[in-house]
Amino acid sequence: MAIPCPHFNFAISEKPAMETLSQSPVVLVQDELKKIAAYKAVEMVKSGMVIGLGTGSTAKHAVDRIGELLRQGKLEDIIGIPTSTKTHEQALSLGIPLSDLDSHPVLDIAIDGADEVDPELNLVKGRGGSLLREKMVEGVCKKFVVIVDESKLVKYIGASGLAMPVEIVPFCWKFTAQRLQEFFEYAGCVAKLRTFASSNGMENCVLPFVTDNGNYLVDLYFKGDIGDLKAASDAILRLAGVVEHGMFLDMATTVVVAGELGVTIKNKIIREEILSRLYQFTIYEDDSPQILVFSLRKILMS
Amino acid sequence: MAIPCPHFNFAISEKPAMETLSQSPVVLVQDELKKIAAYKAVEMVKSGMVIGLGTGSTAKHAVDRIGELLRQGKLEDIIGIPTSTKTHEQALSLGIPLSDLDSHPVLDIAIDGADEVDPELNLVKGRGGSLLREKMVEGVCKKFVVIVDESKLVKYIGASGLAMPVEIVPFCWKFTAQRLQEFFEYAGCVAKLRTFASSNGMENCVLPFVTDNGNYLVDLYFKGDIGDLKAASDAILRLAGVVEHGMFLDMATTVVVAGELGVTIKNKIIREEILSRLYQFTIYEDDSPQILVFSLRKILMS
Repeated sequence: MAIPCPHFNFAISEKPAMETLSQSPVVLVQDELKKIAAYKAVEMVKSGMVIGLGTGSTAKHAVDRIGELLRQGKLEDIIGIPTSTKTHEQALSLGIPLSDLDSHPVLDIAIDGADEVDPELNLVKGRGGSLLREKMVEGVCKKFVVIVDESKLVKYIGASGLAMPVEIVPFCWKFTAQRLQEFFEYAGCVAKLRTFASSNGMENCVLPFVTDNGNYLVDLYFKGDIGDLKAASDAILRLAGVVEHGMFLDMATTVVVAGELGVTIKNKIIREEILSRLYQFTIYEDDSPQILVFSLRKILMS
Repeated sequence: MAIPCPHFNFAISEKPAMETLSQSPVVLVQDELKKIAAYKAVEMVKSGMVIGLGTGSTAKHAVDRIGELLRQGKLEDIIGIPTSTKTHEQALSLGIPLSDLDSHPVLDIAIDGADEVDPELNLVKGRGGSLLREKMVEGVCKKFVVIVDESKLVKYIGASGLAMPVEIVPFCWKFTAQRLQEFFEYAGCVAKLRTFASSNGMENCVLPFVTDNGNYLVDLYFKGDIGDLKAASDAILRLAGVVEHGMFLDMATTVVVAGELGVTIKNKIIREEILSRLYQFTIYEDDSPQILVFSLRKILMS
């Protein structure tokens, strides 16, 4: 459905602060932090692995590093699964052998950035526009390593005040955006179609951003906490017209955070993993609390 | 992602029985039944209404009838919201004034066919390929009237053994189809990409069917009952790569069934409606069971 420019009632989404500051010294530091996190994550990549290659300014460093290690012969027999056409091109130019989910439906590891990380390692992704392919790829990897600088850590999803993107079909996008905004009214939600400025030589125009899948993005901005994330996720997905959203819940297994004071690695220990590790340790009924805590620590560190 | 023909491992979906029999006398009867149901449903359309116009062989009769009543001056000031480009063209040719969900986000009534109707008035739709737009339109109408011939009544969703379609993004469609099939393994599910035969003059080729939204359709065929429909719906929608599915749960308010013995109208009485009607009747604590049943009947018939 072609929509002439004057029909856009939703304000143009603002550029992320990161880009608007791209010339300042602060951002040079931020980019350096991203690079440190990316390099740390790539240490987890081993020869022979099938690797999900993320998209965005942080993931780009990881893909560059993988290409470098491959060129140096320090990595061999790897296969990359790109999460966007942009990453596909980058990986191709670096000589990384590529495949797709149809041929490799299970991945050993995926490395990608995130726009927000909450204390439970739930993420917001997709401000770069590739959330659907990222979710498809990163949903089937044994290890999903998220790389961020410390500015991405939030108390709760949406707390940064920046966009939580939702990919929707172009058909009646305004209707779908309105329903999303109404649904999250309790959290002071504002829904804006993601657009970009274009010029055809004669006049300037604002056009909808189109994803790799031919869809539009609606960015949701929250004033407050949206509460139960799984319930919110299901409610969004149940709206006919929605293709996918940018909340990645219970997906990250490791988050590498680069800050000015160094690199922190947060691991998500899932219940099954704790149980399987428990078998390696003997715990007695009459162990003192101190011994139990000591054993638990050993289990978590193992 | 362009996929050359030899890559299609999923068998070509069969044409619906209806079409393959289009020359037999039995089908003339079936089409007559569809027409009877359609005309009955259009009796519920009043002047001034905003009407969702369905897609498919049964809905076509309803759209034709609305056009006819408009031409005869028996209907006035109506606005149609088409659920496909095909219905859009049909309605345009009949002179029905058209709009969309962006301008008319609430509809008075929608009339459409269905591929299956279970005893709870849950539906399977989308064998015609328009499930997403149908679900968007029919999800926001005050009254959703479904018109079917009696062959569409099933004991449970999937019981016809025919397709339950799922609209998916083309990116790694084989991967998504495989995940859908695996998810419903307990119900003996087989997933097939919907295709059509094409000829470019030089050679015949099998191509994926592409929806109005630029997506593919995977048809799911079940051997057994899939159980809890709402849980199945959420599970499908949670798969990244899925756009929408053809189960329309708790959406139909009325089903008009045309059979050889006449027309039956099934109404879904929702809890809120019963409660609101209850206020019109006085029920006493010491009413006998007979009186209570009599009162309830009066409430339901009111």
